[in-house]
Amino acid sequence: MNISKRAQAMQESPIRKLAAIATETKKRGTQVYHLNIGQPDIHTPEVYYENIRNYSDKVLAYGPSDGLDELKGAMVEYFSRYGINLEKQDVIVTTGGSEAVSFAFNVIADPGDEIIIPEPFYTNYNGYAALSNINIVPVTTLPETGYHLPAMAEIEAKITSRTKGILICSPNNPTGTVFSEKEIRGIAEIAKKHNIFLLADEVYKEFTYDGEKHFSILQMEEHKDRVIVMDSISKRYSACGARIGAVISKNRDIMKSIMKFAQARLCPPTLEQIGAIAAYKQPLTYFDNIISEYQNRRDTLVEILTSNPEIVLEKPKGAFYFMAKLPVDDAENFAKWLLGEYQLDNQTVMVAPGAGFYSTPGKGSQEVRIAYVLECEKLKRAGNILLEAIKAYNA
Amino acid sequence: MNISKRAQAMQESPIRKLAAIATETKKRGTQVYHLNIGQPDIHTPEVYYENIRNYSDKVLAYGPSDGLDELKGAMVEYFSRYGINLEKQDVIVTTGGSEAVSFAFNVIADPGDEIIIPEPFYTNYNGYAALSNINIVPVTTLPETGYHLPAMAEIEAKITSRTKGILICSPNNPTGTVFSEKEIRGIAEIAKKHNIFLLADEVYKEFTYDGEKHFSILQMEEHKDRVIVMDSISKRYSACGARIGAVISKNRDIMKSIMKFAQARLCPPTLEQIGAIAAYKQPLTYFDNIISEYQNRRDTLVEILTSNPEIVLEKPKGAFYFMAKLPVDDAENFAKWLLGEYQLDNQTVMVAPGAGFYSTPGKGSQEVRIAYVLECEKLKRAGNILLEAIKAYNA
Repeated sequence: MNISKRAQAMQESPIRKLAAIATETKKRGTQVYHLNIGQPDIHTPEVYYENIRNYSDKVLAYGPSDGLDELKGAMVEYFSRYGINLEKQDVIVTTGGSEAVSFAFNVIADPGDEIIIPEPFYTNYNGYAALSNINIVPVTTLPETGYHLPAMAEIEAKITSRTKGILICSPNNPTGTVFSEKEIRGIAEIAKKHNIFLLADEVYKEFTYDGEKHFSILQMEEHKDRVIVMDSISKRYSACGARIGAVISKNRDIMKSIMKFAQARLCPPTLEQIGAIAAYKQPLTYFDNIISEYQNRRDTLVEILTSNPEIVLEKPKGAFYFMAKLPVDDAENFAKWLLGEYQLDNQTVMVAPGAGFYSTPGKGSQEVRIAYVLECEKLKRAGNILLEAIKAYNA
Repeated sequence: MNISKRAQAMQESPIRKLAAIATETKKRGTQVYHLNIGQPDIHTPEVYYENIRNYSDKVLAYGPSDGLDELKGAMVEYFSRYGINLEKQDVIVTTGGSEAVSFAFNVIADPGDEIIIPEPFYTNYNGYAALSNINIVPVTTLPETGYHLPAMAEIEAKITSRTKGILICSPNNPTGTVFSEKEIRGIAEIAKKHNIFLLADEVYKEFTYDGEKHFSILQMEEHKDRVIVMDSISKRYSACGARIGAVISKNRDIMKSIMKFAQARLCPPTLEQIGAIAAYKQPLTYFDNIISEYQNRRDTLVEILTSNPEIVLEKPKGAFYFMAKLPVDDAENFAKWLLGEYQLDNQTVMVAPGAGFYSTPGKGSQEVRIAYVLECEKLKRAGNILLEAIKAYNA
């Protein structure tokens, strides 16, 4: 009577591992600035709650497996504002972006198959790969080049007979890097040449700065049969608890198969979909203030941290994270020490150790992921604590 | 660039296959009585909606991966009313019973492993087994014996070196059969003897009739390390769209591993959990009227159908379904014909063909599943249409 091998193979969340230390620190009365998790502090749009409050059906019934028709329509309309033409049949509403990842992985890959992903990457890809016995093949990107893609030949060299797809996340979690249209078209050409799928996690679509624009894989009409997008409202509308996402593809066979997965779990949560409809119906201008707020936060924190020239940090153009290479021997030890032992005026900072975002052993040992999801004043304080802590740690 | 084998292997929902015919029939103006799907018409408790309307957090944030602490507490309290003592750590809130099934399957079985399930069974077990490359090994139960378990030796004979668990669903979907304490203890002894897990889907716990009581596998203290329960509020509180369920086990290693699965999908939907808290806080007397209503419905429909002595139907003691063996050559053809071609005073009935609930090819070809989720007056009408249709079909 054993736990399955796949359960044993699944890694614990690298962020949540530090949670116990954080609890102890707070018990001692020390304030913790949480730069470790991508939980935005932006208010969820009031219309989200309002639409749910107005829901009047007496029976909270099963919805359609592919999502409420009105929500699918609202999503299609949202994409059209970016010049991306979708039909409702190209969209299946999922229970969070997580389920979109699970559906996308399972529809293209069987046990032992491979998906290429630039590392560092969002750790939950690992979870779904382990659960589905899929092997993630990493292509390493570097802090020194702002975590942009390496030469296309380096990516192509990773392709084997078991490779089913390449996944990119742009704007990237954990690095904040926005891949250029050229980079994305390069990846698409490799996918075409080797006849594999191209997957993209585009949940940070809105969050680009300095005039940078997100280039979606859905914009490449010529690759539409191999394109699968994983999407979510969690960050877009600061509704992480809603668990509403979508998987998007113009490939009919893919969507027909994903529909079978969707039917097995019956439907996404109904009331949260009702909220999402209202969120999606807001104009794109809704994002203006949010984007400038995040840009300020990024600028504030990056300016402080780069005042130490030993910190390798190229200001990224998107999402609300960045990775930084710190002048410490081991970033995980540092993060534990920072959280559990260090304090400055009874305050400290929680960051996510970088190694957990890599699948190549040994990589990322000097890096941390920092989420700038606090107000600027708090970020200033947290940034200064980090600078002082690095000095103290190395002393 | 192919669809994965697991996606290809996944069967389409046998109920939803008829959906297109139903749509056409309704377009022609013919009324359809839906006895095909387990969507109760009972109102969701008003407190469910009320608690959500009163939610005042400005940010709909990620909740804990194992569910909101207050909901876990309410679930533990609910079980205590049945004399089942749980601790919060024995419960992980899931996104619907579906996810509880997925977690339970994946924590005990790797690709190629086997789980024994009495058939006919809930079709979505197939979906999750296909997705996870697990083989379901059926033990056939018969309409003539009210779909009770066969001799224990017959079940035991199915065990191989790849068998990881036995799953029972009681009260049963699709048969309505409530397995006796003796049957369940018998299964547990087999599980113990072969050192495998014992899984139970207990989502119809409340729905037992004629004084019959549900016996939970959680009541067997001596087997607690091998017991995993999959639960849901969908039927209990008529909240199918909520997607709130739970996986319950006192085995620490199992729960620790399931927690990793839970972390990969971050959290269950927050607002639906808020609703569920209020639903669970209602006293057990909440179910009294609902149970007597379902018992009346069952009695009404069973009485009508058994007026045809050629219909094999032993009145079941639970859930809100039964299977009936009809005097027709092929129940799927009959169901299609009934829905698409037959009508009585411009009304007809939709039932679920039985074969889809079996994994042994050829089984269930004369059976249908009937859900009594309509008011008695409608059920009378639907029952009479069925009787007349059988005559017409065979004429």
